[in-house]
Amino acid sequence: MKEFPMLTTIGFDADDTLWHNETFFRLTQDRFTRLLADHSDPVRLHDRLLAAERRNLGAYGFGVKGFTLSMIETAIEVSGGQVPASVIGEILAAGREMLEHPVNLLPHARATVTALAAEYRVVLITKGDLLDQERKLAQSGLGELFDGVEIVSDKTPEIYRAAFARHGTGADQGLMVGNSLKSDVLPMLAAGGWGVHVPHELTWALERADPPTGHGRFHHLPDLSLLPDLVGKLASPHNR
Amino acid sequence: MKEFPMLTTIGFDADDTLWHNETFFRLTQDRFTRLLADHSDPVRLHDRLLAAERRNLGAYGFGVKGFTLSMIETAIEVSGGQVPASVIGEILAAGREMLEHPVNLLPHARATVTALAAEYRVVLITKGDLLDQERKLAQSGLGELFDGVEIVSDKTPEIYRAAFARHGTGADQGLMVGNSLKSDVLPMLAAGGWGVHVPHELTWALERADPPTGHGRFHHLPDLSLLPDLVGKLASPHNR
Repeated sequence: MKEFPMLTTIGFDADDTLWHNETFFRLTQDRFTRLLADHSDPVRLHDRLLAAERRNLGAYGFGVKGFTLSMIETAIEVSGGQVPASVIGEILAAGREMLEHPVNLLPHARATVTALAAEYRVVLITKGDLLDQERKLAQSGLGELFDGVEIVSDKTPEIYRAAFARHGTGADQGLMVGNSLKSDVLPMLAAGGWGVHVPHELTWALERADPPTGHGRFHHLPDLSLLPDLVGKLASPHNR
Repeated sequence: MKEFPMLTTIGFDADDTLWHNETFFRLTQDRFTRLLADHSDPVRLHDRLLAAERRNLGAYGFGVKGFTLSMIETAIEVSGGQVPASVIGEILAAGREMLEHPVNLLPHARATVTALAAEYRVVLITKGDLLDQERKLAQSGLGELFDGVEIVSDKTPEIYRAAFARHGTGADQGLMVGNSLKSDVLPMLAAGGWGVHVPHELTWALERADPPTGHGRFHHLPDLSLLPDLVGKLASPHNR
Protein backbone atom coordinates (compact mmCIF):
# COMPACT_ATOMS: atom_id res chain seq x y z
CA MET A 1 0.00 0.00 0.00
CA LYS A 2 1.49 3.28 -1.12
CA GLU A 3 0.91 5.87 1.56
CA PHE A 4 3.66 8.30 0.64
CA PRO A 5 3.37 11.31 0.46
CA MET A 6 0.75 11.63 3.15
CA LEU A 7 0.96 15.37 3.27
CA THR A 8 1.74 17.81 0.46
CA THR A 9 0.29 21.17 1.37
CA ILE A 10 0.46 23.39 4.46
CA GLY A 11 -2.16 26.10 4.98
CA PHE A 12 -1.38 29.01 7.30
CA ASP A 13 -3.87 31.27 8.95
CA ALA A 14 -2.58 34.86 9.03
CA ASP A 15 -3.95 37.04 11.86
CA ASP A 16 -2.53 35.96 15.24
CA THR A 17 -0.86 32.98 13.61
CA LEU A 18 1.83 34.73 11.53
CA TRP A 19 1.42 38.28 12.84
CA HIS A 20 -0.29 40.15 15.68
CA ASN A 21 -3.89 41.24 15.09
CA GLU A 22 -6.14 40.83 18.12
CA THR A 23 -3.77 43.08 20.06
CA PHE A 24 -4.77 45.98 17.78
CA PHE A 25 -8.46 45.20 18.23
CA ARG A 26 -8.01 45.19 22.03
CA LEU A 27 -6.09 48.47 22.02
CA THR A 28 -8.81 50.05 19.88
CA GLN A 29 -11.49 48.65 22.16
CA ASP A 30 -9.71 50.21 25.16
CA ARG A 31 -9.70 53.54 23.34
CA PHE A 32 -13.41 53.05 22.54
CA THR A 33 -14.09 52.41 26.24
CA ARG A 34 -12.37 55.66 27.20
CA LEU A 35 -14.24 57.60 24.51
CA LEU A 36 -17.59 56.33 25.79
CA ALA A 37 -16.71 56.60 29.50
CA ASP A 38 -19.40 59.29 30.02
CA HIS A 39 -22.08 57.09 28.47
CA SER A 40 -21.46 53.52 29.59
CA ASP A 41 -19.47 51.46 32.03
CA PRO A 42 -16.82 49.27 30.38
CA VAL A 43 -18.51 45.92 31.01
CA ARG A 44 -21.85 46.93 29.52
CA LEU A 45 -20.11 48.65 26.60
CA HIS A 46 -18.09 45.53 25.85
CA ASP A 47 -21.23 43.38 25.96
CA ARG A 48 -23.14 45.69 23.61
CA LEU A 49 -20.21 45.89 21.19
CA LEU A 50 -19.85 42.12 21.08
CA ALA A 51 -23.60 41.77 20.51
CA ALA A 52 -23.39 44.27 17.62
CA GLU A 53 -20.42 42.45 16.08
CA ARG A 54 -22.30 39.17 16.29
CA ARG A 55 -25.50 40.70 14.88
CA ASN A 56 -23.65 42.36 11.99
CA LEU A 57 -21.37 39.48 11.03
CA GLY A 58 -23.74 38.25 8.32
CA ALA A 59 -23.87 41.68 6.69
CA TYR A 60 -20.37 43.03 7.32
CA GLY A 61 -18.26 39.89 7.49
CA PHE A 62 -14.91 39.93 9.27
CA GLY A 63 -12.48 42.80 9.38
CA VAL A 64 -11.71 46.31 10.53
CA LYS A 65 -14.37 48.17 8.50
CA GLY A 66 -17.22 46.14 9.99
CA PHE A 67 -15.68 46.48 13.46
CA THR A 68 -15.59 50.27 13.05
CA LEU A 69 -19.24 50.35 11.93
CA SER A 70 -20.21 48.17 14.91
CA MET A 71 -18.36 50.50 17.30
CA ILE A 72 -20.26 53.50 15.91
CA GLU A 73 -23.58 51.65 16.18
CA THR A 74 -22.79 50.69 19.78
CA ALA A 75 -21.78 54.25 20.69
CA ILE A 76 -25.18 55.52 19.48
CA GLU A 77 -27.00 52.71 21.28
CA VAL A 78 -25.35 52.98 24.71
CA SER A 79 -25.63 56.77 24.73
CA GLY A 80 -29.32 56.70 23.88
CA GLY A 81 -28.51 58.72 20.76
CA GLN A 82 -26.64 61.38 22.76
CA VAL A 83 -23.06 60.64 21.71
CA PRO A 84 -21.50 63.76 20.16
CA ALA A 85 -20.25 63.70 16.58
CA SER A 86 -16.73 64.41 17.82
CA VAL A 87 -16.68 61.00 19.54
CA ILE A 88 -17.91 59.31 16.34
CA GLY A 89 -15.08 61.10 14.55
CA GLU A 90 -12.62 59.64 17.07
CA ILE A 91 -13.99 56.16 16.43
CA LEU A 92 -13.53 56.63 12.68
CA ALA A 93 -9.94 57.74 13.31
CA ALA A 94 -9.31 54.70 15.52
CA GLY A 95 -10.58 52.41 12.76
CA ARG A 96 -8.40 54.04 10.15
CA GLU A 97 -5.36 53.71 12.40
CA MET A 98 -6.03 49.97 12.63
CA LEU A 99 -5.87 49.85 8.84
CA GLU A 100 -2.43 51.44 8.96
CA HIS A 101 -0.87 49.61 11.90
CA PRO A 102 2.53 48.07 11.24
CA VAL A 103 2.70 44.32 10.74
CA ASN A 104 4.59 42.62 13.56
CA LEU A 105 5.46 39.01 12.81
CA LEU A 106 4.98 36.48 15.58
CA PRO A 107 8.00 34.50 16.83
CA HIS A 108 9.23 31.79 14.41
CA ALA A 109 6.75 32.83 11.68
CA ARG A 110 9.31 33.66 9.01
CA ALA A 111 11.62 30.73 9.78
CA THR A 112 8.75 28.24 9.86
CA VAL A 113 7.14 29.35 6.59
CA THR A 114 10.56 29.49 4.92
CA ALA A 115 11.48 25.98 6.07
CA LEU A 116 8.17 24.44 5.02
CA ALA A 117 8.04 26.31 1.68
CA ALA A 118 11.26 24.54 0.69
CA GLU A 119 9.61 21.11 0.88
CA TYR A 120 5.84 21.57 0.67
CA ARG A 121 3.28 23.76 -1.01
CA VAL A 122 2.39 26.55 1.39
CA VAL A 123 -0.84 28.51 1.18
CA LEU A 124 -2.12 31.48 3.17
CA ILE A 125 -5.83 31.21 4.01
CA THR A 126 -7.30 34.18 5.86
CA LYS A 127 -10.55 35.99 6.59
CA GLY A 128 -11.02 39.75 6.78
CA ASP A 129 -11.18 42.78 4.52
CA LEU A 130 -9.60 42.00 1.16
CA LEU A 131 -7.48 45.12 0.84
CA ASP A 132 -6.38 45.09 4.49
CA GLN A 133 -5.23 41.48 4.34
CA GLU A 134 -3.36 42.13 1.09
CA ARG A 135 -1.67 45.14 2.74
CA LYS A 136 -0.60 43.08 5.74
CA LEU A 137 0.74 40.26 3.59
CA ALA A 138 2.75 42.74 1.49
CA GLN A 139 4.15 44.40 4.62
CA SER A 140 4.94 41.07 6.26
CA GLY A 141 7.56 40.31 3.62
CA LEU A 142 6.29 36.71 3.53
CA GLY A 143 4.28 37.08 0.31
CA GLU A 144 6.87 35.54 -2.00
CA LEU A 145 7.05 32.38 0.10
CA PHE A 146 3.45 31.35 -0.51
CA ASP A 147 2.36 29.27 -3.49
CA GLY A 148 -1.15 30.60 -3.11
CA VAL A 149 -3.18 33.12 -1.14
CA GLU A 150 -6.88 32.81 -0.39
CA ILE A 151 -8.72 35.67 1.30
CA VAL A 152 -12.11 34.19 2.15
CA SER A 153 -15.33 35.47 3.68
CA ASP A 154 -15.61 32.51 6.07
CA LYS A 155 -13.72 29.34 6.96
CA THR A 156 -15.86 26.28 6.37
CA PRO A 157 -15.06 22.68 5.38
CA GLU A 158 -16.18 23.55 1.82
CA ILE A 159 -13.80 26.52 1.68
CA TYR A 160 -10.91 24.32 2.85
CA ARG A 161 -11.77 21.56 0.37
CA ALA A 162 -11.79 24.09 -2.47
CA ALA A 163 -8.60 25.86 -1.35
CA PHE A 164 -6.57 22.68 -0.88
CA ALA A 165 -7.88 21.27 -4.16
CA ARG A 166 -6.89 24.44 -5.98
CA HIS A 167 -3.46 24.92 -4.45
CA GLY A 168 -2.56 21.40 -3.35
CA THR A 169 -3.64 17.80 -3.77
CA GLY A 170 -6.83 17.90 -1.74
CA ALA A 171 -7.70 18.53 1.89
CA ASP A 172 -6.90 14.95 2.92
CA GLN A 173 -3.26 15.64 2.05
CA GLY A 174 -3.39 19.08 3.61
CA LEU A 175 -2.67 20.56 7.02
CA MET A 176 -4.04 23.84 8.36
CA VAL A 177 -2.32 25.67 11.17
CA GLY A 178 -3.82 28.58 13.08
CA ASN A 179 -4.73 30.14 16.38
CA SER A 180 -8.48 29.64 16.09
CA LEU A 181 -9.92 26.23 16.90
CA LYS A 182 -13.24 27.39 15.49
CA SER A 183 -11.98 28.70 12.13
CA ASP A 184 -8.62 27.08 11.47
CA VAL A 185 -8.80 23.66 13.07
CA LEU A 186 -12.33 22.24 13.37
CA PRO A 187 -13.51 22.92 9.79
CA MET A 188 -10.20 21.60 8.40
CA LEU A 189 -10.63 18.38 10.38
CA ALA A 190 -14.19 18.17 9.02
CA ALA A 191 -12.75 18.57 5.51
CA GLY A 192 -10.57 15.50 6.11
CA GLY A 193 -7.26 17.23 6.70
CA TRP A 194 -4.93 17.82 9.62
CA GLY A 195 -5.61 20.68 12.00
CA VAL A 196 -2.85 22.16 14.14
CA HIS A 197 -3.73 24.60 16.89
CA VAL A 198 -1.07 27.15 17.84
CA PRO A 199 -2.86 29.37 20.34
CA HIS A 200 -2.32 33.10 20.62
CA GLU A 201 -2.49 34.71 24.03
CA LEU A 202 -5.57 36.69 22.92
CA THR A 203 -8.60 35.16 21.21
CA TRP A 204 -11.67 37.10 20.06
CA ALA A 205 -14.81 35.90 21.87
CA LEU A 206 -16.50 34.95 18.58
CA GLU A 207 -13.58 32.66 17.65
CA ARG A 208 -13.64 30.51 20.77
CA ALA A 209 -14.45 26.79 20.61
CA ASP A 210 -13.68 23.62 22.54
CA PRO A 211 -10.83 21.46 21.25
CA PRO A 212 -11.79 18.19 19.60
CA THR A 213 -11.32 15.06 21.68
CA GLY A 214 -9.75 11.88 20.39
CA HIS A 215 -9.27 13.11 16.81
CA GLY A 216 -6.22 11.47 15.24
CA ARG A 217 -5.49 14.43 12.93
CA PHE A 218 -5.66 17.12 15.61
CA HIS A 219 -2.44 18.48 17.03
CA HIS A 220 -1.59 21.26 19.44
CA LEU A 221 1.69 23.13 19.45
CA PRO A 222 2.79 25.89 21.83
CA ASP A 223 4.45 27.86 19.01
CA LEU A 224 5.32 27.68 15.31
CA SER A 225 8.93 26.57 15.85
CA LEU A 226 7.76 22.99 16.36
CA LEU A 227 5.69 22.82 13.17
CA PRO A 228 8.36 21.70 10.67
CA ASP A 229 9.23 18.70 12.85
CA LEU A 230 5.56 17.73 13.24
CA VAL A 231 4.95 18.08 9.50
CA GLY A 232 8.01 15.94 8.76
CA LYS A 233 6.65 13.17 10.97
CA LEU A 234 3.17 13.34 9.47
CA ALA A 235 4.43 13.46 5.88
CA SER A 236 6.52 10.31 6.11
CA PRO A 237 5.48 8.35 9.18
CA HIS A 238 7.40 5.24 8.16
CA ASN A 239 10.72 7.03 8.06
CA ARG A 240 10.58 8.04 11.69
CA MET B 1 0.35 29.96 -38.97
CA LYS B 2 -2.06 28.50 -36.48
CA GLU B 3 -4.15 31.31 -35.06
CA PHE B 4 -7.14 29.31 -33.83
CA PRO B 5 -8.48 29.54 -31.15
CA MET B 6 -7.80 33.25 -30.76
CA LEU B 7 -10.03 33.58 -27.76
CA THR B 8 -10.75 31.03 -25.03
CA THR B 9 -11.89 32.91 -21.94
CA ILE B 10 -14.49 35.61 -21.28
CA GLY B 11 -14.25 37.72 -18.12
CA PHE B 12 -17.34 39.51 -16.87
CA ASP B 13 -17.45 42.45 -14.53
CA ALA B 14 -20.39 42.15 -12.11
CA ASP B 15 -21.72 45.49 -10.74
CA ASP B 16 -23.56 47.44 -13.46
CA THR B 17 -22.50 44.88 -16.05
CA LEU B 18 -24.54 41.85 -14.94
CA TRP B 19 -26.71 43.50 -12.29
CA HIS B 20 -27.65 46.97 -11.05
CA ASN B 21 -25.38 48.53 -8.45
CA GLU B 22 -24.73 52.24 -8.96
CA THR B 23 -28.51 52.79 -8.75
CA PHE B 24 -28.41 51.72 -5.09
CA PHE B 25 -25.47 54.01 -4.38
CA ARG B 26 -27.35 56.94 -5.97
CA LEU B 27 -30.53 56.22 -4.01
CA THR B 28 -28.52 56.05 -0.79
CA GLN B 29 -26.74 59.26 -1.68
CA ASP B 30 -30.13 60.96 -2.20
CA ARG B 31 -31.17 59.75 1.24
CA PHE B 32 -27.88 61.05 2.64
CA THR B 33 -28.55 64.44 1.04
CA ARG B 34 -31.98 64.64 2.70
CA LEU B 35 -30.54 63.58 6.08
CA LEU B 36 -27.92 66.34 5.93
CA ALA B 37 -30.25 69.01 4.46
CA ASP B 38 -29.97 71.13 7.60
CA HIS B 39 -26.18 71.08 7.45
CA SER B 40 -25.14 71.33 3.81
CA ASP B 41 -26.47 72.11 0.37
CA PRO B 42 -26.57 69.08 -1.96
CA VAL B 43 -23.76 70.19 -4.29
CA ARG B 44 -21.24 70.84 -1.51
CA LEU B 45 -22.26 67.63 0.26
CA HIS B 46 -21.74 65.63 -2.92
CA ASP B 47 -18.33 67.21 -3.46
CA ARG B 48 -17.22 66.52 0.10
CA LEU B 49 -18.46 62.90 -0.05
CA LEU B 50 -16.64 62.26 -3.31
CA ALA B 51 -13.47 63.79 -1.83
CA ALA B 52 -13.79 61.50 1.21
CA GLU B 53 -14.33 58.43 -0.97
CA ARG B 54 -11.26 59.30 -3.01
CA ARG B 55 -9.18 60.02 0.10
CA ASN B 56 -10.23 56.77 1.78
CA LEU B 57 -9.93 54.45 -1.22
CA GLY B 58 -6.42 53.37 -0.29
CA ALA B 59 -7.51 52.40 3.23
CA TYR B 60 -11.06 51.16 2.69
CA GLY B 61 -10.96 49.84 -0.88
CA PHE B 62 -14.17 49.51 -2.88
CA GLY B 63 -17.58 48.57 -1.52
CA VAL B 64 -20.50 49.46 0.69
CA LYS B 65 -18.72 49.39 4.07
CA GLY B 66 -16.15 51.96 3.00
CA PHE B 67 -18.90 54.06 1.39
CA THR B 68 -20.84 54.04 4.68
CA LEU B 69 -17.77 55.08 6.66
CA SER B 70 -17.10 57.89 4.15
CA MET B 71 -20.71 59.12 4.47
CA ILE B 72 -20.35 59.27 8.26
CA GLU B 73 -17.04 61.11 7.99
CA THR B 74 -18.58 63.59 5.55
CA ALA B 75 -21.62 64.17 7.79
CA ILE B 76 -19.33 65.10 10.67
CA GLU B 77 -17.21 67.32 8.42
CA VAL B 78 -19.97 69.32 6.73
CA SER B 79 -21.84 69.86 10.02
CA GLY B 80 -18.74 71.13 11.78
CA GLY B 81 -19.14 68.28 14.25
CA GLN B 82 -22.78 69.20 14.99
CA VAL B 83 -24.57 66.31 13.26
CA PRO B 84 -26.77 64.48 15.80
CA ALA B 85 -26.18 60.79 16.54
CA SER B 86 -29.65 60.00 15.22
CA VAL B 87 -28.55 61.06 11.73
CA ILE B 88 -25.42 58.92 11.99
CA GLY B 89 -27.72 56.06 12.97
CA GLU B 90 -29.77 56.68 9.81
CA ILE B 91 -26.61 56.57 7.71
CA LEU B 92 -25.65 53.23 9.28
CA ALA B 93 -29.13 51.91 8.49
CA ALA B 94 -28.88 53.13 4.89
CA GLY B 95 -25.56 51.30 4.50
CA ARG B 96 -26.97 48.09 5.93
CA GLU B 97 -29.93 48.28 3.57
CA MET B 98 -27.53 48.48 0.64
CA LEU B 99 -26.00 45.20 1.85
CA GLU B 100 -29.44 43.61 1.72
CA HIS B 101 -30.79 45.03 -1.52
CA PRO B 102 -32.18 42.49 -3.97
CA VAL B 103 -30.08 41.63 -7.00
CA ASN B 104 -31.69 42.81 -10.23
CA LEU B 105 -30.07 41.37 -13.33
CA LEU B 106 -29.50 43.70 -16.26
CA PRO B 107 -31.15 42.92 -19.62
CA HIS B 108 -29.59 39.97 -21.50
CA ALA B 109 -27.20 39.13 -18.63
CA ARG B 110 -28.43 35.61 -18.01
CA ALA B 111 -28.83 34.71 -21.70
CA THR B 112 -25.43 36.08 -22.63
CA VAL B 113 -23.49 34.35 -19.84
CA THR B 114 -25.38 31.11 -20.53
CA ALA B 115 -24.63 31.23 -24.26
CA LEU B 116 -20.94 32.01 -23.78
CA ALA B 117 -20.49 29.47 -20.98
CA ALA B 118 -21.47 26.73 -23.43
CA GLU B 119 -18.48 27.44 -25.67
CA TYR B 120 -15.89 29.35 -23.65
CA ARG B 121 -14.51 29.54 -20.16
CA VAL B 122 -16.35 32.29 -18.32
CA VAL B 123 -14.95 34.06 -15.27
CA LEU B 124 -16.45 36.68 -12.98
CA ILE B 125 -13.93 39.37 -11.98
CA THR B 126 -15.22 41.98 -9.57
CA LYS B 127 -14.13 44.52 -6.98
CA GLY B 128 -15.90 45.32 -3.72
CA ASP B 129 -16.49 43.82 -0.30
CA LEU B 130 -15.83 40.07 -0.36
CA LEU B 131 -18.96 38.97 1.48
CA ASP B 132 -21.25 41.41 -0.32
CA GLN B 133 -20.06 40.32 -3.77
CA GLU B 134 -20.47 36.65 -2.81
CA ARG B 135 -24.01 37.38 -1.61
CA LYS B 136 -24.93 39.12 -4.86
CA LEU B 137 -23.47 36.33 -6.98
CA ALA B 138 -25.43 33.74 -4.99
CA GLN B 139 -28.65 35.74 -5.31
CA SER B 140 -28.09 36.36 -9.01
CA GLY B 141 -28.52 32.67 -9.78
CA LEU B 142 -25.60 32.93 -12.22
CA GLY B 143 -23.00 31.38 -9.91
CA GLU B 144 -23.08 27.91 -11.43
CA LEU B 145 -22.39 29.25 -14.93
CA PHE B 146 -18.94 30.59 -14.07
CA ASP B 147 -15.79 28.48 -14.27
CA GLY B 148 -14.10 30.84 -11.84
CA VAL B 149 -14.79 33.82 -9.61
CA GLU B 150 -12.22 36.42 -8.62
CA ILE B 151 -13.11 39.09 -6.08
CA VAL B 152 -10.18 41.49 -6.22
CA SER B 153 -9.15 44.64 -4.38
CA ASP B 154 -8.33 46.49 -7.61
CA LYS B 155 -8.36 45.91 -11.36
CA THR B 156 -4.89 46.28 -12.81
CA PRO B 157 -3.12 44.69 -15.81
CA GLU B 158 -1.30 42.39 -13.32
CA ILE B 159 -4.60 41.28 -11.77
CA TYR B 160 -6.01 40.47 -15.22
CA ARG B 161 -2.86 38.61 -16.28
CA ALA B 162 -3.04 36.48 -13.13
CA ALA B 163 -6.80 35.86 -13.36
CA PHE B 164 -6.76 34.86 -17.04
CA ALA B 165 -3.69 32.69 -16.48
CA ARG B 166 -5.37 30.94 -13.57
CA HIS B 167 -8.79 30.42 -15.15
CA GLY B 168 -7.98 30.50 -18.86
CA THR B 169 -5.08 30.40 -21.26
CA GLY B 170 -3.61 33.82 -20.61
CA ALA B 171 -4.81 37.39 -21.02
CA ASP B 172 -3.88 37.48 -24.73
CA GLN B 173 -6.56 34.84 -25.34
CA GLY B 174 -8.99 36.55 -22.98
CA LEU B 175 -11.72 39.15 -23.27
CA MET B 176 -13.03 41.33 -20.46
CA VAL B 177 -16.47 42.92 -20.66
CA GLY B 178 -17.73 45.60 -18.32
CA ASN B 179 -19.26 49.01 -17.83
CA SER B 180 -16.12 50.74 -16.59
CA LEU B 181 -13.55 51.87 -19.14
CA LYS B 182 -11.17 52.60 -16.29
CA SER B 183 -11.43 49.24 -14.50
CA ASP B 184 -12.73 46.70 -17.00
CA VAL B 185 -11.40 47.82 -20.37
CA LEU B 186 -8.17 49.84 -20.19
CA PRO B 187 -6.20 47.55 -17.83
CA MET B 188 -7.32 44.47 -19.81
CA LEU B 189 -6.09 46.05 -23.05
CA ALA B 190 -2.81 46.82 -21.24
CA ALA B 191 -2.62 43.15 -20.23
CA GLY B 192 -2.80 42.18 -23.93
CA GLY B 193 -6.42 41.04 -24.05
CA TRP B 194 -9.63 42.28 -25.59
CA GLY B 195 -11.68 44.92 -23.78
CA VAL B 196 -15.38 45.35 -24.46
CA HIS B 197 -17.19 48.36 -23.03
CA VAL B 198 -20.92 47.97 -22.36
CA PRO B 199 -21.86 51.25 -20.68
CA HIS B 200 -24.40 51.53 -17.89
CA GLU B 201 -26.54 54.64 -17.71
CA LEU B 202 -24.89 55.54 -14.38
CA THR B 203 -21.15 55.59 -13.79
CA TRP B 204 -19.49 56.50 -10.49
CA ALA B 205 -17.28 59.59 -10.85
CA LEU B 206 -14.19 57.67 -9.74
CA GLU B 207 -14.69 55.08 -12.52
CA ARG B 208 -14.75 57.52 -15.43
CA ALA B 209 -12.08 57.47 -18.13
CA ASP B 210 -11.71 58.35 -21.80
CA PRO B 211 -12.09 55.53 -24.32
CA PRO B 212 -8.93 54.36 -26.06
CA THR B 213 -8.45 55.55 -29.61
CA GLY B 214 -7.34 53.31 -32.44
CA HIS B 215 -6.86 50.18 -30.33
CA GLY B 216 -7.57 47.06 -32.37
CA ARG B 217 -8.76 45.03 -29.39
CA PHE B 218 -11.20 47.62 -28.01
CA HIS B 219 -14.89 47.20 -28.74
CA HIS B 220 -17.99 49.03 -27.64
CA LEU B 221 -21.44 47.43 -27.45
CA PRO B 222 -24.71 49.09 -26.46
CA ASP B 223 -25.83 46.04 -24.49
CA LEU B 224 -24.85 42.45 -23.65
CA SER B 225 -27.12 40.83 -26.27
CA LEU B 226 -24.53 41.54 -28.98
CA LEU B 227 -21.60 40.01 -27.08
CA PRO B 228 -21.92 36.35 -28.22
CA ASP B 229 -21.83 37.42 -31.87
CA LEU B 230 -18.78 39.64 -31.32
CA VAL B 231 -16.99 36.88 -29.40
CA GLY B 232 -17.77 34.41 -32.21
CA LYS B 233 -16.16 36.72 -34.76
CA LEU B 234 -13.09 37.35 -32.61
CA ALA B 235 -12.60 33.68 -31.75
CA SER B 236 -12.52 32.44 -35.33
CA PRO B 237 -11.94 35.41 -37.66
CA HIS B 238 -11.22 33.24 -40.68
CA ASN B 239 -14.62 31.59 -40.56
CA ARG B 240 -16.52 34.83 -40.99
